[in-house]
Amino acid sequence: MEAMNDNSTLYDLAMNLESSHSQVIPITMFIAVLCLCLVIGHLLEEYRWVNESITAILIGCVAGTIILCTSKWKSSRLLTFNEELFFIYLLPPIIFNAGFQVKKKQFFHNLFPIMLFGVAGVFISTSIVAAGSWWLFPKLGFEGLTISDYLSIGTIFSSTDTVCTLQVLNQDETPLLYSLVFGEGVVNDATSVVLFNAVQKMNADTLNGQTALRIFVDFLYLFSMSTILGVTAGLVTAFILKGLYFGRHSSVREIALMVLVAYLSYMLAELFELSGILTVFFAGVLMSHYSWHNVTESSRITTRYAFATLSFIAETFIFLYVGMDALDYAKWKTSTISFGTKMGIYCTVMLLILLGRAVFVFPLSVITNYMYRSGGESAKITGQHQMVIWWAGLMRGAVSVALAFKQAFFCNISVLFCNSHFTHSGVTLDPTNATMITTTIVIVLFSTVVFGFLTKPLIDHLLPPNSNTTRVSRDPGPKEDMTLPLMSLEESASENLSRAKDNLSMLMDRPVYTIHSYWRRFDTAYMRPIFGGPSENDNDASC
Amino acid sequence: MEAMNDNSTLYDLAMNLESSHSQVIPITMFIAVLCLCLVIGHLLEEYRWVNESITAILIGCVAGTIILCTSKWKSSRLLTFNEELFFIYLLPPIIFNAGFQVKKKQFFHNLFPIMLFGVAGVFISTSIVAAGSWWLFPKLGFEGLTISDYLSIGTIFSSTDTVCTLQVLNQDETPLLYSLVFGEGVVNDATSVVLFNAVQKMNADTLNGQTALRIFVDFLYLFSMSTILGVTAGLVTAFILKGLYFGRHSSVREIALMVLVAYLSYMLAELFELSGILTVFFAGVLMSHYSWHNVTESSRITTRYAFATLSFIAETFIFLYVGMDALDYAKWKTSTISFGTKMGIYCTVMLLILLGRAVFVFPLSVITNYMYRSGGESAKITGQHQMVIWWAGLMRGAVSVALAFKQAFFCNISVLFCNSHFTHSGVTLDPTNATMITTTIVIVLFSTVVFGFLTKPLIDHLLPPNSNTTRVSRDPGPKEDMTLPLMSLEESASENLSRAKDNLSMLMDRPVYTIHSYWRRFDTAYMRPIFGGPSENDNDASC
Repeated sequence: MEAMNDNSTLYDLAMNLESSHSQVIPITMFIAVLCLCLVIGHLLEEYRWVNESITAILIGCVAGTIILCTSKWKSSRLLTFNEELFFIYLLPPIIFNAGFQVKKKQFFHNLFPIMLFGVAGVFISTSIVAAGSWWLFPKLGFEGLTISDYLSIGTIFSSTDTVCTLQVLNQDETPLLYSLVFGEGVVNDATSVVLFNAVQKMNADTLNGQTALRIFVDFLYLFSMSTILGVTAGLVTAFILKGLYFGRHSSVREIALMVLVAYLSYMLAELFELSGILTVFFAGVLMSHYSWHNVTESSRITTRYAFATLSFIAETFIFLYVGMDALDYAKWKTSTISFGTKMGIYCTVMLLILLGRAVFVFPLSVITNYMYRSGGESAKITGQHQMVIWWAGLMRGAVSVALAFKQAFFCNISVLFCNSHFTHSGVTLDPTNATMITTTIVIVLFSTVVFGFLTKPLIDHLLPPNSNTTRVSRDPGPKEDMTLPLMSLEESASENLSRAKDNLSMLMDRPVYTIHSYWRRFDTAYMRPIFGGPSENDNDASC
Repeated sequence: MEAMNDNSTLYDLAMNLESSHSQVIPITMFIAVLCLCLVIGHLLEEYRWVNESITAILIGCVAGTIILCTSKWKSSRLLTFNEELFFIYLLPPIIFNAGFQVKKKQFFHNLFPIMLFGVAGVFISTSIVAAGSWWLFPKLGFEGLTISDYLSIGTIFSSTDTVCTLQVLNQDETPLLYSLVFGEGVVNDATSVVLFNAVQKMNADTLNGQTALRIFVDFLYLFSMSTILGVTAGLVTAFILKGLYFGRHSSVREIALMVLVAYLSYMLAELFELSGILTVFFAGVLMSHYSWHNVTESSRITTRYAFATLSFIAETFIFLYVGMDALDYAKWKTSTISFGTKMGIYCTVMLLILLGRAVFVFPLSVITNYMYRSGGESAKITGQHQMVIWWAGLMRGAVSVALAFKQAFFCNISVLFCNSHFTHSGVTLDPTNATMITTTIVIVLFSTVVFGFLTKPLIDHLLPPNSNTTRVSRDPGPKEDMTLPLMSLEESASENLSRAKDNLSMLMDRPVYTIHSYWRRFDTAYMRPIFGGPSENDNDASC
């Protein structure tokens, strides 16, 4: 301290203050740009085809240009992309909110097609994109990728971003379509991250049946364990809130408990190397199904809007970042590939995405229609619907970018021998990885801006507003016998057996409705008394 | 990538994964402990004297002990204290919420005593503690501190933490007392941070009249500029929300805008080296006075509870941390001072805090009573009230700890020649600074646990519940002539002059009421039409 007046020490002090300010300046500017996004997004709200994502990306590009000019072509970014920032802070609120806000009745009713599109679809799309790039990239002169890299490319470009489409679709006019697109979007996010992690764990250079099986088993393990963890977190919260009646003392503590347990489940999943995204999604679903009904009225309103706000800010943040990052000069320079090859790669990937999605959407829709054949005309996924679903999943978003950075990070640490400054400096030194990241950014930008822009006209063309109003919510099938007990101890064994036979034949005939009706009876009889939930009266309103 | 199977590379990969996990593990555990705090805090709610702060500190101590044992006496902390984490992420929500939730009518009505206690009080208390420690520390054998250090000690131990007291006081039974304690707490937080920064800027070794004047001028500049920035941020938000009618499209965007502008104002203040704490406090006050009335009903409920929740989590986080940090073995070892001297220092500081507060509370109460002499008996700060106010400000909390770390950081960078790893490693190498930090932690622990524990019995003794009910809200004084225009262009100059004379005599006679009534008329006539606000009818309910 005696040295306080020493010149060199003062210089150090100044240096240190400057470096502490170097964090304050970008955060300040980023928040200022976020505020600008909010206001402009609001002003453009009238024009439904210019949605939040496009606004944020374009503002990001403009801000990037300004920064690029003022920094004399050095950098276009305020914050370097840190995949930890994304996976630890930005993604959880988005996914938790998705689970929390999903219309559970519709979601569980359409669970079968949603899982089919969201899980099987990702597998099919990944195979197509991986195989296509493995076949075509070397022909374009882009070589040096391993099998694991191609599979990563497959998963990176199979994660959809349905924010655009959801802003255009109307939940009341086309409930089936909305729930399919929304549900697929959520499950797809989770599946692609889980699959990506499974692929990353694989360290074989060739892909044979055994490796594929191992990836699949890994995937199943991750999927089921993550779901169990999320469900447990949701149930524990519901039990605590109901058992201890938190609302008696303060709403604040209720809200804090929900947020913290949800985040805890995400972090626990990450700790056990499971899929935090899936865990926090199911935690959200369970919390809104049980916990939400155990809290005070103010807490209900607050959680609904506060979670949506957090998610909204995180999403805008990501798109803004992508827009800024697109102009990052250093990244474009690092990539050693010629302009023609680059264009070739972008077009190839774009075509593979279009193809990969078409290959699963149309056949899987046919399967779904077969399964729901007893649901009548209104339950069918029509040709127009199939087109919309196909189009809805063409946009690529934040998850793709995050996975691309993660991939580059994984490759870099193996090449650069644990260069811990990688994520801080944000420079992708490897030309191949630089190409990967620029490709991802170009695809995200192009698909969000161009495809997103065309979504509104396309939907208006395929589903003219006047015809939509006739489509009502999917018929929930024949009325279930809600008084039918799940299993009765008072009846004789033979009666139970004959009932079991009836149920089995019903299960074969209308599998989805039967499972759903069983679940609802089980929920009402056993779950709700323990974990809380809506009373039967306001069942329809709350689901 | 070809090297993926290489052993050394895999080792690096493992290392890196571990280092990335080294962040996941502490966050996970910290959140788990936070959840535990919530549940235990709820269960202990019945016993009002065991408040949230005490619970969090004690749980922190227990968790610290467990970590200390499992880590084999290496560390008791999950996260190292980063003053940036505190000042950039934890403090803003707490202060913003304080501004947002403050009962503005009471606050502005008692603005004079609040400012007197919160600003003049800090100056007096700082002088007493600084002078006392300058006089007594060398006698105890603790030397090597500069004048600037003593002044820093003064400000560190002048920042109060009134969370404890507010949990015990009843807003309806003793509105005057509650508003004084709460208001002082907020202004005190801001003042001590501002004063601390002013002292840090000073780099003279001796304290003379000129230096003291410079500190005071610096303080005035920081105080006024910060206030202006906060007020501007609040007005801009109100104007945007009213002018563009955000609620038309989405509640989410309204809430996001309020949060982001508030945070932006804080960061801007930090960027311009003003007091972010004061800025964000006034942004909160203005937002709840104007903006809050321009948003939809759901946004109102959400903001009220969401901000409170954020603040609650941040506060619990800090107390939990203080509890854990108390057991940090390394810090206690670094301090080279003998046990006796340490005890001497703790007792001295404790006594100085008691004295420093007594010296300003009682005389300033007398001044306040003189100023409010026309308010009748109910407006008087009685002897019992003075005792409660004195006691309420004896607890030391998060701000003290943060300032102590900041002080250590400032000294360290001047001694250690810009050791940028300081805040990351969290080790305070300088023995003097280690002593400073341990002293602060001991004082915070002792005052929060012991004084906090005694607050409830003391208040019960001084203000028996049955006598409280007779005390009503401070009489708002004679009815103001709300129809009286602020300045009339239609009247003659002489009439205006005579009115000005009347006003002036009124100002001399009842200064506080007159200013307050002027402000209310100005607010109704000019501000509310532009920035929005409650209509006259629901004025009393909303303030």
